[in-house]
Amino acid sequence: MGDVSSETTYKYERIADDIDHLIECGALQPGDRIPSVRRMSRAREVSISTVLQAYYLLEARGLIRARPRSGFYVRSDLPSNLPEPEISTPDPDPTQVSMRELVSMVVLKDATNPALIQLGAAHPNPALAATEKLNRTLTVVARRMGDESGLYDYAPGCEALRMQIARQSLTAGCSLSPEDIVITSGCSESVSFCLRAVCDRGDTVAIESPICFDTLQTLEALGLRALEIPTHPRDGISLEALRFAMQHNPVSACLVISNFNNPLGSCIPDPKKRALVSLLATQEIPLIENDIFGELYFGDARPSVAKAYDRQGLVMLCSSFSKTLAPGYRVGWVVPGQFLSTVRWLKYTSSLAAPTLSEHAIAEFMSSGSYAPYLRRTRRAYERRVTSMSRAVRRAFPEETKLTRPSGGFLLWVELPEAVDSLVLYERAQAAGIAITPGYLFSATDQYPNFIRLNAANWSDEAEAAIDRLGQIIRQLG
Amino acid sequence: MGDVSSETTYKYERIADDIDHLIECGALQPGDRIPSVRRMSRAREVSISTVLQAYYLLEARGLIRARPRSGFYVRSDLPSNLPEPEISTPDPDPTQVSMRELVSMVVLKDATNPALIQLGAAHPNPALAATEKLNRTLTVVARRMGDESGLYDYAPGCEALRMQIARQSLTAGCSLSPEDIVITSGCSESVSFCLRAVCDRGDTVAIESPICFDTLQTLEALGLRALEIPTHPRDGISLEALRFAMQHNPVSACLVISNFNNPLGSCIPDPKKRALVSLLATQEIPLIENDIFGELYFGDARPSVAKAYDRQGLVMLCSSFSKTLAPGYRVGWVVPGQFLSTVRWLKYTSSLAAPTLSEHAIAEFMSSGSYAPYLRRTRRAYERRVTSMSRAVRRAFPEETKLTRPSGGFLLWVELPEAVDSLVLYERAQAAGIAITPGYLFSATDQYPNFIRLNAANWSDEAEAAIDRLGQIIRQLG
Repeated sequence: MGDVSSETTYKYERIADDIDHLIECGALQPGDRIPSVRRMSRAREVSISTVLQAYYLLEARGLIRARPRSGFYVRSDLPSNLPEPEISTPDPDPTQVSMRELVSMVVLKDATNPALIQLGAAHPNPALAATEKLNRTLTVVARRMGDESGLYDYAPGCEALRMQIARQSLTAGCSLSPEDIVITSGCSESVSFCLRAVCDRGDTVAIESPICFDTLQTLEALGLRALEIPTHPRDGISLEALRFAMQHNPVSACLVISNFNNPLGSCIPDPKKRALVSLLATQEIPLIENDIFGELYFGDARPSVAKAYDRQGLVMLCSSFSKTLAPGYRVGWVVPGQFLSTVRWLKYTSSLAAPTLSEHAIAEFMSSGSYAPYLRRTRRAYERRVTSMSRAVRRAFPEETKLTRPSGGFLLWVELPEAVDSLVLYERAQAAGIAITPGYLFSATDQYPNFIRLNAANWSDEAEAAIDRLGQIIRQLG
Repeated sequence: MGDVSSETTYKYERIADDIDHLIECGALQPGDRIPSVRRMSRAREVSISTVLQAYYLLEARGLIRARPRSGFYVRSDLPSNLPEPEISTPDPDPTQVSMRELVSMVVLKDATNPALIQLGAAHPNPALAATEKLNRTLTVVARRMGDESGLYDYAPGCEALRMQIARQSLTAGCSLSPEDIVITSGCSESVSFCLRAVCDRGDTVAIESPICFDTLQTLEALGLRALEIPTHPRDGISLEALRFAMQHNPVSACLVISNFNNPLGSCIPDPKKRALVSLLATQEIPLIENDIFGELYFGDARPSVAKAYDRQGLVMLCSSFSKTLAPGYRVGWVVPGQFLSTVRWLKYTSSLAAPTLSEHAIAEFMSSGSYAPYLRRTRRAYERRVTSMSRAVRRAFPEETKLTRPSGGFLLWVELPEAVDSLVLYERAQAAGIAITPGYLFSATDQYPNFIRLNAANWSDEAEAAIDRLGQIIRQLG
């Protein structure tokens, strides 16, 4: 019984969440009729009563209203949706990156400060994460491995894990073998090795704009210049702009967060990924693809990776378990294509090996079948949280606010009225016990002074109150 | 009772090992009288019967012989000691490093091949290591930390661990605070960050010669040039040669393995460490000090670190738990002196954080008091193994062989007859199921074609037979 009831629960909640999402992203407008109970029941292959349960839940959420003998409608008194930010228009010239002071001030100080309500750092939710179960797996693995668990596991790293990663990548459209993969100590390390493999100090790297400061400061640490490319909040980097940039600058590599860009939440559509790979291949420019959020999609299927369209080995796919499982385990990977031997060697010469027990515990967690259901639960949870936070922002922030509508991940990118300086807001929010990430951190050329990034992963009543408080502060500043 | 008896055992074995070591390193020559039982009993503050036990043990080992009414003497039919290698005389010009092919071929292929008897890679002995106990500690820590154990622990890393490292460094002559320390993913990462903090591509780094290929390939990966400095097998880098090199070359940094150089086993005497720090300070050249073997001393006290004599913050001390505890845990540290903020930032931009559970488990292991007795046992075990392996080499290898007499660590550096090419020997040994490390790997300028490095950590009957077999192969080649 337990199983059946949880299955039923899953179905009606899923239907409710799907409609909630359509309302949230504007596909269903206030006043629109939602599909009839009978039609929905046939379409989703569930009972009438399951659909009714879903619709009652949406009523309880204040989103829809029943009209006698007519069906269910999106409430017309819903606050209207906030528009999305426009495509970005960054500086067209390559820039020396200089983020160090800002990152040290904002991120390293705040990100793990337990006194603050964390709406800033892009950490996954530790309560949602499978940490406890993963730790138990680690204990079992440690006992089984004995002395071996203390030894080096040199690059390319744990074969069982590379096997699991290769299998998992099938759903992203890739056909990889374990030999194609190098285990690293996280996605940042993967990206750093890729950049070192294909660029020399002073070279220019084309990147999406905005992009997470992690990437910017890796460029800075390696002495590389950033060429920020206009990026759409839904479908990512502009190919037209990239083509233009390639014609006017010597570009040594291109770097994108293909699925659910941090902070935009943009997802490059599959045909556009193919076009991106082709475009770069015309000049044999390597594409460094960060797919760290790729498994956290809200739709029915995992978006593909650009690597899936790579015929020349020019795409270097980077990822890790830090957004899905446990950042503290420090396990990531890279699929470096034709640069495999160089990247493996850089891993070896930089840090020899990934942590042995972490690697083996994750491999065991995946092969035991725990990963897939865990990911399903987590995706749903993040989708709900993103929806809830979006709604709270809409309610609490000024009308001129613009807000992204991510289809995966757990981040929101918020454009505030022009008068609001995000660093001033950051200071005021911090004084009020709230951590946010100011927009200055997402461009080497200060493109986003009035933007902030919010993390919905830790959504709670406390977080909701923090959004209200933020709204008040913004109105004072704006 | 159990404790007392184990204490007694410890004392007589310790006395026997000390005398064994004096014989081995030539301080007691064949025919020499060893101290009388009564004198020894007073000197070591143990009972007469304890000293007798020690001397009977040495008789059983075939090292000493009692003469009636006269005392105990070193047996005069002992094979004479092999001489030590001379001070090295490497190429006086800076060199581009190019080790990649050789390292990939030799190290990555062999080091973890269970089919080979491992006398090559400088791995600690997994059976001696406290892996099981450490894993149990990790399990307890994981349960206590809960969700937090899965989260990022950003640079500078776990404070409890930095506290323990600061305390432990007291015995090395340092007075550090936790704020001086950055946790890394191992000593290689520490060294890599230090080099990146103070050198640019193309710069020259003065290093001891021979030095482990780990260092050479880190230089290679960063595009740095190696300036190999003559190094004595007992007391390390020649200050005269270093001074000369500094006068004739622009040196951006100096890098030494101050205590028990890999492969030499040399230990820079404390006054010489002070002089080294002063010499480099005259030109404000940073000293990168690798102390990874420092805790594995055979003598009564831990040798100091050069960092202890650093008044200007120019010494960057690097170490890890990879030779003492568990390489697979991937936890090291660096004390970067005046370069602290840069190194912390490089850690952050390169790999964000060290593995959270590993850090906390080691901190707990240290604070529980398990580390000190563990280290005592391990030091003794390695000392014995080095002594046994030296004896076996002396017996099995040709007379012209020269052999180091390390006072710590678990490595031996062997100079073979000039006709023996260590790469040919490496191939033949491998065919016979034995892994050794050829001397070519310890210089960027092929200084040591007829040298090999041996690791005594895994000493066993099997390893002893392997030394015999190696001796036969060498005689065929020589």
